[in-house]
Amino acid sequence: MRFDILTIFPAFFTGPLDHGVLKRAIATGIVDVRTHDLRAFTHDRHRTVDDRPFGGGEGMVLKPGPIYDCFQTLDIAAKPERDTTKETVVLLSAQGQPFTQAIAHELAAAERVVFLCGRYEGIDERINLLLCDRELSIGDYILSGGELAAAVILDSVVRLMPGVLGNPDSARNESFGTESAPEKGGLTADGVPDSTHLSGGLLDYPHYTRPAEFLGLEVPEVLQQGDHSAIRKWRRQMALAKTYRNRPDLLAKADLTRKDQEFLSHLQVSDDETST
Amino acid sequence: MRFDILTIFPAFFTGPLDHGVLKRAIATGIVDVRTHDLRAFTHDRHRTVDDRPFGGGEGMVLKPGPIYDCFQTLDIAAKPERDTTKETVVLLSAQGQPFTQAIAHELAAAERVVFLCGRYEGIDERINLLLCDRELSIGDYILSGGELAAAVILDSVVRLMPGVLGNPDSARNESFGTESAPEKGGLTADGVPDSTHLSGGLLDYPHYTRPAEFLGLEVPEVLQQGDHSAIRKWRRQMALAKTYRNRPDLLAKADLTRKDQEFLSHLQVSDDETST
Repeated sequence: MRFDILTIFPAFFTGPLDHGVLKRAIATGIVDVRTHDLRAFTHDRHRTVDDRPFGGGEGMVLKPGPIYDCFQTLDIAAKPERDTTKETVVLLSAQGQPFTQAIAHELAAAERVVFLCGRYEGIDERINLLLCDRELSIGDYILSGGELAAAVILDSVVRLMPGVLGNPDSARNESFGTESAPEKGGLTADGVPDSTHLSGGLLDYPHYTRPAEFLGLEVPEVLQQGDHSAIRKWRRQMALAKTYRNRPDLLAKADLTRKDQEFLSHLQVSDDETST
Repeated sequence: MRFDILTIFPAFFTGPLDHGVLKRAIATGIVDVRTHDLRAFTHDRHRTVDDRPFGGGEGMVLKPGPIYDCFQTLDIAAKPERDTTKETVVLLSAQGQPFTQAIAHELAAAERVVFLCGRYEGIDERINLLLCDRELSIGDYILSGGELAAAVILDSVVRLMPGVLGNPDSARNESFGTESAPEKGGLTADGVPDSTHLSGGLLDYPHYTRPAEFLGLEVPEVLQQGDHSAIRKWRRQMALAKTYRNRPDLLAKADLTRKDQEFLSHLQVSDDETST
């Protein structure tokens, strides 16, 4: 799968591309990531990529010319044909639709994704209209540019690609253990949902590793014993508690059993007692 | 203001720290960003930072020891005193509360922010309990680690700090124009909200710059004329249209005038006609 990143800061990506999952995916040839410097497509001595906005107002706008000229070198299909060629062009901007894990899965099915990184007040809207298939935002906060957003989407998409995670060889190469696949979930024989993660509708449960006692704090006893049914129950409750505390909005959409509901109502009662 | 980033990938940040707003803020001494390599606090030949989870399951967990030892070198106040010292420790994880522009403002008021970047399945929960003040997530998608999340929060916080944006000297240094402050908004004399941006409750309106005609597409005529009241009205409507299309969820919370409501109902009617 190929990724192209159009940016005025190509060296921005040096660090993000050179670590962990992305580094391995590039080294093994599963993905090919190319950055393109928009300034290389300017024709003046100052390599100007921006200009003042029509209609007045603060800030500068990325000029259409250099972006369009850069696109001409990419050999990418015209907009109407991109469904067939499995190519897609993503504009990163605060005005985009929210990027989610579902969109990560969609993008992971493409053959090629082009990221256009906005900067300053934004890009000339005609570029959006002429060249871009979707406009995405990674969250409700303001960034200096689309570069970090592109890196975020790239990371989350690449980890979904077959062979990137859980490849025993590449994991051994870095010698710090394997990373598990993002999707877990599903029900076990005793009807307790097996595990949780963002994609499962709840936040993940807390994790513990050795030593069993650290600065006087013990790992919860249930995790130190071998009762897997008890461990699943504890983890489910901890996942519910963490979601209740940090992301109550997710509970409404989560797939909850009657026992989950009972546990949550206990949490609510104990919260009410604390606050009065 | 000082930032400390605890990570197993300190070189990850080279690109993000060396461009645009962050680069300028560091160069002018407004912020001091230090990365700390957790592997420097391991004591075995393989510099092991992770271990298997108690209770079983896939993946690895960041060990508490190296993180705790790294913290000891930071000279940061104990948790109960951090309100007074204006220090705060942020754990980046998919289990965190959603990072928003409001939290960016909160963090910008601190003297010091420490970012702890999770990796693999997460960190040992006792570290969260002992050392961290808040757990933040930048969005509903799964990343390989907290590094990109830390870079995102850092960028959005630094651009809020006095002197970072709109400093004519530093802007001239990079010779690609100024960046406007993120907050605009407010009402003008004729009652049309002046501008929009994420913080104003609506998405920003589209921007255009020269040339006035590009590949046969003209900049909207209203922007090429000098009628500022007409420009404001057009921009408001375009902001409403973009928000309606990309972020309908924001409209419920936005501060809308009666004219805004009328315009939105026209949009809805024309959408209904298209879809039937």
